[in-house]
Amino acid sequence: MFHRPVLQVFRQFARCQSTDSLSAILERSMNKVQLLGRVGQDPVMRQADGKNPVTIFSLATNELWRSGENEVFQPAGDVNQKTTWHRVSVFRPGLRDVAYQHVKKGARLLVEGKIDYGEYTDKNNVRRQATTIIADNIIFLTDLRDKP
Amino acid sequence: MFHRPVLQVFRQFARCQSTDSLSAILERSMNKVQLLGRVGQDPVMRQADGKNPVTIFSLATNELWRSGENEVFQPAGDVNQKTTWHRVSVFRPGLRDVAYQHVKKGARLLVEGKIDYGEYTDKNNVRRQATTIIADNIIFLTDLRDKP
Amino acid sequence: MFHRPVLQVFRQFARCQSTDSLSAILERSMNKVQLLGRVGQDPVMRQADGKNPVTIFSLATNELWRSGENEVFQPAGDVNQKTTWHRVSVFRPGLRDVAYQHVKKGARLLVEGKIDYGEYTDKNNVRRQATTIIADNIIFLTDLRDKP
Amino acid sequence: MFHRPVLQVFRQFARCQSTDSLSAILERSMNKVQLLGRVGQDPVMRQADGKNPVTIFSLATNELWRSGENEVFQPAGDVNQKTTWHRVSVFRPGLRDVAYQHVKKGARLLVEGKIDYGEYTDKNNVRRQATTIIADNIIFLTDLRDKP
Repeated sequence: MFHRPVLQVFRQFARCQSTDSLSAILERSMNKVQLLGRVGQDPVMRQADGKNPVTIFSLATNELWRSGENEVFQPAGDVNQKTTWHRVSVFRPGLRDVAYQHVKKGARLLVEGKIDYGEYTDKNNVRRQATTIIADNIIFLTDLRDKP
Repeated sequence: MFHRPVLQVFRQFARCQSTDSLSAILERSMNKVQLLGRVGQDPVMRQADGKNPVTIFSLATNELWRSGENEVFQPAGDVNQKTTWHRVSVFRPGLRDVAYQHVKKGARLLVEGKIDYGEYTDKNNVRRQATTIIADNIIFLTDLRDKP
Repeated sequence: MFHRPVLQVFRQFARCQSTDSLSAILERSMNKVQLLGRVGQDPVMRQADGKNPVTIFSLATNELWRSGENEVFQPAGDVNQKTTWHRVSVFRPGLRDVAYQHVKKGARLLVEGKIDYGEYTDKNNVRRQATTIIADNIIFLTDLRDKP
Repeated sequence: MFHRPVLQVFRQFARCQSTDSLSAILERSMNKVQLLGRVGQDPVMRQADGKNPVTIFSLATNELWRSGENEVFQPAGDVNQKTTWHRVSVFRPGLRDVAYQHVKKGARLLVEGKIDYGEYTDKNNVRRQATTIIADNIIFLTDLRDKP
């Protein structure tokens, strides 16, 4: 949003402001996601020894609706269902390790975070989009002692 | 989540249930997004005469944080900023037309909806991911009479 | 927000607008609550035969924090916990009956709705505030077959 | 939720756990509020010199719906509106001062926080409920330079 020279001036000004007062002066945004669903696979940890280790797992959310529901509700209409698979990444120190140890395949979770549209180059050298949900909060809904 | 034969039995059962009672019996999920940001371009409408017309626009959200903030807050650290561009699609009848008429480049909006990871084949015949936020609620934060 | 004469003019104008276009023209608000917690008692239904029957139950949410956590995180600090009891009311047809039949003492629920600060006169003829969460969505997190 | 002796044992155990691992082991709740509305009066600060200073202001949210909307949508029905006044309290250091300096009567804000059902004794010695929203995030939607 800011161009380079403006960023320099802005950084000078911002250094002597608390984050809260900055947040009153600057226009703020919101990028929030809430997913409640089932874990697809046991998580993996990438770059475990690197600067930015990350725990990654997949989460499925399921949608049910009746055909024709969008216009006027027809209780007798057929029920449709769609499963959406999300890629969840946990970078936050502490939470990343808890996720790696306690998130299990089949567990039911509430995940809160933000969307990030990363990019990578696949083995055929093609640039690809890799959307992920960067989690900053995980609430376990399955009792950790139960085998999901 | 359900395999074909189970789906048939389930549909039989579901037809004679209200959506609310279904929602108590079946395990439900949540796939929620909230974005508060600035519109990138005036919206376009696709398949305007087709079965499923959709209004599409881009929305930017901006993030500010201090270097080193993730560990322990250092009020004097440098301020960093990152802009994320989201693709918003509006299928819902009524809202789709309001979005097409009233959403303008530069306007500040709160958009609520869900994430959908669609796919398409590009001109080089490569399968690509096209993540979009399917909006079901838009709150205008810029006064429609102001030129954003 | 609108005074009586303005309301008359506004109602005239509003009658020929779809709700969506009204929502673009008029300034909109948001009053959203999300509670995830445990049910205190089996629900009761009030005014079952009246014009506006309502299912009511209590829900407890629990908060954990470390003393001194608000300033700088001291991992070794004592852990404090506080329980907050919420009064949940379900007016919405369909959902009201599902809540009455399926919500049980001890069950874990996610409740979404809005806050309402009602008032009533108690037996000593004193006007009292009775805050309630008017629910429009309930997600069951305890398996209905399990005895919570 | 925990009785005194259990609390002692729990505190012993909790001291040597990080907050994140505690949050995986213990059952967690959620108590979230989002309000988007207009400020009623310039804020006041209470106990400014005391241990727990707090900035307090009122926020109005407005609701529009069509009579008969809850059953089946009748576009021609009369439009009804209801204003709800919320009491917002800001204890969090930093945010409390920003709120006191920058929140003005008539400003449009997005407030995020949790519900707290406090109690107090009024001048007639009657115990009264005083529900408040304890804010942990405020997004200014009116440009601070504009006179709301």
